[in-house]
Order: sequence, then C-alpha cells, then structure tokens
Amino acid sequence: MTSNNQKPCSESRLRVRYAETDQMGVVYHANYFVWFEVGRVDLLRRLGFNYKDMEAQDGCRIAVADARCRYKSPAFYDDQILVRTHIRNVRSSMIHFGYEVLRETDGALLAEGETTHIVTDAKMRIISMPDKYLQAFRAAIDKSRLLQETT
Amino acid sequence: MTSNNQKPCSESRLRVRYAETDQMGVVYHANYFVWFEVGRVDLLRRLGFNYKDMEAQDGCRIAVADARCRYKSPAFYDDQILVRTHIRNVRSSMIHFGYEVLRETDGALLAEGETTHIVTDAKMRIISMPDKYLQAFRAAIDKSRLLQETT
Amino acid sequence: MTSNNQKPCSESRLRVRYAETDQMGVVYHANYFVWFEVGRVDLLRRLGFNYKDMEAQDGCRIAVADARCRYKSPAFYDDQILVRTHIRNVRSSMIHFGYEVLRETDGALLAEGETTHIVTDAKMRIISMPDKYLQAFRAAIDKSRLLQETT
Amino acid sequence: MTSNNQKPCSESRLRVRYAETDQMGVVYHANYFVWFEVGRVDLLRRLGFNYKDMEAQDGCRIAVADARCRYKSPAFYDDQILVRTHIRNVRSSMIHFGYEVLRETDGALLAEGETTHIVTDAKMRIISMPDKYLQAFRAAIDKSRLLQETT
Repeated sequence: MTSNNQKPCSESRLRVRYAETDQMGVVYHANYFVWFEVGRVDLLRRLGFNYKDMEAQDGCRIAVADARCRYKSPAFYDDQILVRTHIRNVRSSMIHFGYEVLRETDGALLAEGETTHIVTDAKMRIISMPDKYLQAFRAAIDKSRLLQETT
Repeated sequence: MTSNNQKPCSESRLRVRYAETDQMGVVYHANYFVWFEVGRVDLLRRLGFNYKDMEAQDGCRIAVADARCRYKSPAFYDDQILVRTHIRNVRSSMIHFGYEVLRETDGALLAEGETTHIVTDAKMRIISMPDKYLQAFRAAIDKSRLLQETT
Repeated sequence: MTSNNQKPCSESRLRVRYAETDQMGVVYHANYFVWFEVGRVDLLRRLGFNYKDMEAQDGCRIAVADARCRYKSPAFYDDQILVRTHIRNVRSSMIHFGYEVLRETDGALLAEGETTHIVTDAKMRIISMPDKYLQAFRAAIDKSRLLQETT
Repeated sequence: MTSNNQKPCSESRLRVRYAETDQMGVVYHANYFVWFEVGRVDLLRRLGFNYKDMEAQDGCRIAVADARCRYKSPAFYDDQILVRTHIRNVRSSMIHFGYEVLRETDGALLAEGETTHIVTDAKMRIISMPDKYLQAFRAAIDKSRLLQETT
C-alpha cells in the first residue's frame, strides 16, 4: 500500500519557527513529531471531537507507543509547511496515524512518518476507547475507502 | 545590591544540546529560561526538598509570574554551561530567584536573569507556602548573608 | 506610556500545541518567548520584508539582548492565542518590541512582554541596520503615532 | 539480533526537566529524540572526536534520515535517565545508531529506538565521511564484537 492510496483525512498548515531550526540551518528533526501532533489534533477535530475533551471529559488518553519519521528533504526557516494526516488503522484500544510533510511553495515531500497510539485511562492503563470515538474513526476510514474506490 | 554580593546558593552544570541551537549557530534565547529552571530545581534540592514532592505531596506549585533574561554573549553547541542560582527574596507566597549563566571553559558571563514565582495550590489560587519550605528558604538566605558579612 | 497607547502593528494567531504544555497542565513559560518571536516575524513581514531575507541577503541579524515576560493568567492546551506585537522604539542598531498575549475566546490577557534586540553582522558584531529597514521601522512608528493622535 | 547482544558503546545520564513534561504528566514523546542526540554525541566523544569538530573542521554533517522510537513506559519529571547508545552499523556515508532509555532508580526500560544518518557536506550532498571517522567507527564496532565473543 503506497501513500498515494491513502486519502488524506486532514491537512494542517504551519510556518517554520526560528525556534525550530538548528545550527545546521534546517528544522531540527525532533520537531517533525510535534508537527505530526498538530496534524493529529486537527484530524480529530475534523472528525467532530477534540483531544482536549477526550482527556477532560472521558478520561481517555491517546499515548504514543511508536513514532517514526523518514526525512526526505530539509525544511527551512519560514517555510510554509503542509502536514497531511490520515488514519491508517483503528482498533478499540489502538490507533495508527500516517503523515506526510510537504513544503507548500514547491510541493516538495520533506518527510513521511507514522505513529501508533494506545488508548489509556488517566492512570495509563490500556482501555477500549468510548464507542463514540471508535465509530467516528471507523466512519472516517470507510468514507476514505469509498472515495478511493470511486476515484 | 550587585550580583557580586549575592552568594550563589546552587551551581548546575549542563552541556548545550544540538536541539538548543538555532540557525544563527547559537543557543536559541528561550532555552535560557529552561536552564534557569534546571538551576532552580537544583537549588531547591540542595535546600533539602524537591519540587516534585512540593507538587505531589503538598499540592504546592511555584508558578512563574515574571521572567527576564539579559543576554551578554552567545552560547554555542557543546559548550559546558554553568548556571548559578540564588534566592533573592522570599515571602510566604512569593519567591524571587536570580541566575547567572557562564561558560565553564573561559568563564565568560553569557547571561543574567531573574524569575519571580507565586505559590499556588493545584487550582492556581495564591496560597502561603507550607512552613517547612518558608523556613528552609529563609535559613538559606540568612546563611548566605552571614557568609557575606564574614568574608 | 501605557500599552493602551501603543497601537498594535501586527496580530498573530496560533493554537496551543500539546508539546507546549507542561505537567502543571498549562503552557510552559519559556514558550511565550517562542510566541513573541512568531509575532515579531509577522510584524516584520507586514512591514514589507522578512527576517529570512535580512539574514540571507543583508547579513543582518537581530540578536536578542533582553527578553522579559510577565505572566497574568495561564494558557491551556488547544487555546486559540492572539499575539499582538508592536515596535516600541528603534535606533540604527537597536529595536525594542512589545507584546501582548491574549486568549481569543474570552479575550483574557495572558501575558505581556518585551524584547530588545541589537543588530549585528554574521560574526555578532554590532552594526547599523541597512537604511531600508530603518526607514520601514520608523515609518511604521510614525504611522502608529499619527493614528494615536487622531483617535 | 536482540538488543542484549548489542554491547552499549556509551552511557549518558540526564535528569528529566520540567520543560520536557506535558500535561499528561509524563515526558513529551518528541523529547526522546533529543535524548537520543545527547547519547549519540556522547558516543562520538567517547570514540575520540566530537560532532562540533566534524561540522566545523571537516564540513562533515550527520543528517538524520530515519528516526524511530518505541515507548515502553512513561518517564516522569525529575527522573534520572540513562541513555545507552550503540553503533549498529556503519558505511562510508551512513551510520546507524541504536538506543535504550532507562530509568536509573528502578532500571525500567522506558523506550528503545534507532536513528539512521547520512553523511553530507555543508550543502546537504551525500559524501563519504573522512577516513579517520570511518576507522574510528569500525574499530568501535569490532571491539564491541570481540567483547561479545569473549563473554
């Protein structure tokens, strides 16, 4: 399954901050994981709920279990960045996100990555996520699959 | 009262991380406030208690109300940094810290700063700090004054 | 001169990232200085040039000499933040910016701050900034004063 | 090849900073990649050269091409952290590092990760690393293998 087959569920735009560069003159690599988080939160918001409420109201946390990034081309200070986030897979206590980071001006692919999250309660014990979240995630995946078949 | 008159209560050593530099090739200025925090925590530890316990056991938080840094000379990647932290003033619900940041190899003064903190409970309401903390702070200040008079 | 008299020259909007919170459940205080930088860069852009070009084309850097922030009320994860940035003063080799950080939803003032910058070359020696920058800064200040007198 | 077979080449110690926590009350996941960098730099230093010189004197940069972290157990504020870094593989223009992050007090394995780096010049073009570096890396790997066979 190539990334072309994965319809993006969410697009986030941000501009590279000076604080995010390092002395090599490019964005410090760990910051891409922060950008992934920005994309993830936006995707959740687009699905109709936000992570803040998940934590505050449902005591439901999405802890990172695995994070990976492959760097293709450096990002520079002041670049306009596009983060495409999609849900790759979801189970009752696990969510798998995929990401593409591009520079808007030239469309260059800067990085690809993925994160796997487990759903836990406030005490970090694995739980099944509340049904409303699971259904929203699954609906998003089904809708994305449908779009792929018809295009 | 010049900084020469303020006996340092605590010295912290750290090495500049690549992540802390920016594309100007020097340490990004906001990171000095993180180093101040390292110094502050070490000073608290040296006084016989730690900030982790203050939060967890006494529900007592030290929220930053004011932070300032004057930058004298840039710090570079891999520099060995010395943070000197002293207590400038303490009241039942307020603590005032001062900091000096130096490079160990040449003793250059890189920055000076200060932070003012208010003591709050978990809900961010101002409280008087538990007496054991206030006494420890005051004893540290008195001891420091005594040292100054005898030297 | 109160902050009410200082017409904002630039407004920047950002959303609090999870990465910017700390275990107190609020935005870690050092991050406000990163937000100030976001505001500063936007203000420069609004004046018709960008900081990236100042560094790359004119070898002209704006190094932070002094930074201060007074914290009024905590910012929380996912808050919509408004950073108002204005130029307080400018001289050939010095620029002084002021900042106000507000939460958009309730208009609460979260923090106020200021930074002083010196203009240097790539080797960190103080220089006079290129005339085009100085004129742009002065024009912005004059325009702001004019607006104040007529309102 | 399990991680038990990989003799650590370097051990780095650090203490969790308040700035590194997030509102979940644990270390924000992106910070582990900063810790990996601390481990990597220490390992290079132990091999007799430092990354600062590689950049400044040899114009030789080690850009991250791939970074991954698997999170096993959360790290908390003020934890004493041990980062074990080893070289997994080295070629003339590629280095592969592995990492284990442990809490010193209870020996808990907090995370495992790896990073792949390509050697580039200052303009981000892939180059073969200077021979002195390649030999030092290979000697370290051979020595490590020898230790494994004899134990």
